[in-house]
Amino acid sequence: MGKGFFITLEGCEGSGKSTQLKMLEEYLKKSGKSFIFTREPGGTPIAEEIRKIILDGKNVEMEDETEALLYASARAQHIKEKIIPSKNQGKIVICDRYIDSSFAYQAYARGLGMEFIKGINVYAVQNCMPDLTLFFDISPEEAFKRKGGADKDDRLEQSGLEFHKRVYLGYKKLAEEYSDRIAVIDARQSADKVFESVIEILRKREII
Amino acid sequence: MGKGFFITLEGCEGSGKSTQLKMLEEYLKKSGKSFIFTREPGGTPIAEEIRKIILDGKNVEMEDETEALLYASARAQHIKEKIIPSKNQGKIVICDRYIDSSFAYQAYARGLGMEFIKGINVYAVQNCMPDLTLFFDISPEEAFKRKGGADKDDRLEQSGLEFHKRVYLGYKKLAEEYSDRIAVIDARQSADKVFESVIEILRKREII
Repeated sequence: MGKGFFITLEGCEGSGKSTQLKMLEEYLKKSGKSFIFTREPGGTPIAEEIRKIILDGKNVEMEDETEALLYASARAQHIKEKIIPSKNQGKIVICDRYIDSSFAYQAYARGLGMEFIKGINVYAVQNCMPDLTLFFDISPEEAFKRKGGADKDDRLEQSGLEFHKRVYLGYKKLAEEYSDRIAVIDARQSADKVFESVIEILRKREII
Repeated sequence: MGKGFFITLEGCEGSGKSTQLKMLEEYLKKSGKSFIFTREPGGTPIAEEIRKIILDGKNVEMEDETEALLYASARAQHIKEKIIPSKNQGKIVICDRYIDSSFAYQAYARGLGMEFIKGINVYAVQNCMPDLTLFFDISPEEAFKRKGGADKDDRLEQSGLEFHKRVYLGYKKLAEEYSDRIAVIDARQSADKVFESVIEILRKREII
């Protein structure tokens, strides 16, 4: 699929992903490379509408299956409308969260299982798997401490430490299982040190 | 599942479902039976939010896969939050559209295929299949003529006659395949005559 690169960033809440995305954007602007930044759930107008329902703090009645199917529906839209066309134009597509978030959060942490999540995503993903995934590895205990607590308006961040511990364990398993695709970065380091690791990985893969 | 009854109503746009739903509601009110009326996509606050995205006339960019996954997500919420609990309370649950709409519209008319639609709905439906489905059988040509044209604000009704013909053929196939569950009612008759058929079927199945 395509001649560009598709890179996803993954990690628990407070893993420093957002900071790294900003640093990477600055870097790529200077490099003259053709790139886009996008995010999941979201990335297109319809997918962003779906995002609002998923993250709305008042939707406490949401069933786990509903949530997982909403993520898959937003992803289906995002892939066809934005990711595949951009990659086909030769762009570096950088996406904040993707299928591994569904695996870590829904399959592992919510306990829906990999079979369920793979089953509903196989139609959404359509062979559009990332060429590279950067996993920012920091435990939720350390991440929350660094962040100063959870965001009260975000339904997911309210889910509590036990939930986020399961997310983290999910990511660790995924990193082991898909070690060719997922690069593990020690996110306990300073932002600058973490960014050095990001650049090193991208260089080694000849993406930049 | 449950001690109540789960009845779904299906048919093309303009098949007279809404009229029949009103007549059935009046009838059940007088009968003293315990019942609820609900609809898909929708039926709960979260599922109604999803419905808005699906039916919004401005969402012309929506991919077929996105649409199908949104229907499944709304259904997952509806089933767990409303249909199963109501049926367990012994109620007659009457739902305007359900899984057969996904089969007819997405699998057949959009061409996504039964495997796709079954695959994403197996997790949503969780063995909560209708005890009885009433299919209001009228071709889209006749239905549109009777209705005086399509609703311009409804994304689905804008899809054109060819699409609705495929939906109709989908329903006909389903009625053949699931003949034990799906009762076919000649919807070309007057509303009163159609309602007589509805009542006859419900009596025969000892639902009323």
